[in-house]
Amino acid sequence: MAKRPLILVTNDDGITAPGIRTLISVMNTIGDVVVVAPDSPQSGMGHAITVDATLYLEKVNIDGKQPEYSCSGTPADCVKLAVREILDRTPDICVSGINHGSNSSINVIYSGTMSAALEAGIEGIPAIGFSLLDYNWNANFEHCKDFVETITRQVIEHGLPDGVVLNVNLPNLNKKDIKGIKVCRQARANWVEEFDKRTNPMGREYYWLAGKFVNKDNGEDTDEWALANGYVSIVPVQFDLTAHHAIQKLNTWTLN
Amino acid sequence: MAKRPLILVTNDDGITAPGIRTLISVMNTIGDVVVVAPDSPQSGMGHAITVDATLYLEKVNIDGKQPEYSCSGTPADCVKLAVREILDRTPDICVSGINHGSNSSINVIYSGTMSAALEAGIEGIPAIGFSLLDYNWNANFEHCKDFVETITRQVIEHGLPDGVVLNVNLPNLNKKDIKGIKVCRQARANWVEEFDKRTNPMGREYYWLAGKFVNKDNGEDTDEWALANGYVSIVPVQFDLTAHHAIQKLNTWTLN
Repeated sequence: MAKRPLILVTNDDGITAPGIRTLISVMNTIGDVVVVAPDSPQSGMGHAITVDATLYLEKVNIDGKQPEYSCSGTPADCVKLAVREILDRTPDICVSGINHGSNSSINVIYSGTMSAALEAGIEGIPAIGFSLLDYNWNANFEHCKDFVETITRQVIEHGLPDGVVLNVNLPNLNKKDIKGIKVCRQARANWVEEFDKRTNPMGREYYWLAGKFVNKDNGEDTDEWALANGYVSIVPVQFDLTAHHAIQKLNTWTLN
Repeated sequence: MAKRPLILVTNDDGITAPGIRTLISVMNTIGDVVVVAPDSPQSGMGHAITVDATLYLEKVNIDGKQPEYSCSGTPADCVKLAVREILDRTPDICVSGINHGSNSSINVIYSGTMSAALEAGIEGIPAIGFSLLDYNWNANFEHCKDFVETITRQVIEHGLPDGVVLNVNLPNLNKKDIKGIKVCRQARANWVEEFDKRTNPMGREYYWLAGKFVNKDNGEDTDEWALANGYVSIVPVQFDLTAHHAIQKLNTWTLN
């Protein structure tokens, strides 16, 4: 690509989160950056969109280096607004994150970070979601920068297969302890919830969602294996959810 | 199955919506029903979960026929609470809907109805999301009943492949005009948004999300084709989002 690529940056932790500020700094070395991100944290929003409420969009100045817009909606809303209302051409790539916390394996389903990347993918824009395995607001993102740059440049150079976006997770290790980047499949894992039941001052019971992550997958080709063994994981993710292998089986049923 | 199956019923339009009341009436002819559904409409919530707020759960009596719980959370929250806090054994099946409006093709990504079914699937419970192609609160669901019963009984009889749930959409036609049930793949389609920009009484600009659905897929094996041609569509849907076909290609990149 001769001219500098146009890069749309978003996230789900909110426009001031250290993770997106790191991502913006890396993207400024690669192309022309426009930021459209939620005005407040949206974690756990899945692929939510705002269908029955109004959306506010404010041009904001955070570090003066690139156009930035703060949005009252979800990460998927941000991508839709960027494409339809803000940008005068389709971006060459959309990057989302860097999320404060893992979006590996089944977490992809609940992830606002990945919903933004998927929304961009649905629009035909090559897209990547980046997540660091550290939930702290003050997580150290320095060691992520080179990996984020390498992967982004490869996507710009090669493009992505139609209907595919990338889910990238980075281990929370010193850079010298990271062994490299591995292309993986999504591990079969789930959350076993343990709801914490409490009583509020008015005597009404309520719950907090808690729980632990259980990886039931022993494969060495999964994102969980890669991350546990010191690699950055890339899972190519698709938004055609059809279980093609199941169609033939269902056709043997007595449906008609 | 010798004893009556235990059936978990949920939705995303809220526990009093006509669609879920129809679904409950059909399920009562098949097994023992427990309802855990949102206390208010959750459409467009995607696979949201409540991670940073409290959840309320109230036992409610709507028609006196089965145990029912109204929940302040999302459809995925309802399934998690049902499995961990309410039911004393794993349900034999989870049904979600009947949604007021289509969840065909790409709408599966944004669907609270399907997020509940996927959440149940992640828990290893056979699950189906049902949707009627009519957004009206007062939609007529009578013609759905026999199809819902047939498909549910087939799932109870045959089970579902590991990691697969069903996305069922029903055309808004008279029963005599419905030609039957077709197993399909998810059509490649998307929404082309047209944001409606307005100014509020205080002079601040805001947006409403609007747009039109564009089907770019000419296949006759898709859910869109089936619905347009008078069939009930069933798409088997998976929550392993890995684009397995893309892994080999990514491994040719210069990542390390």
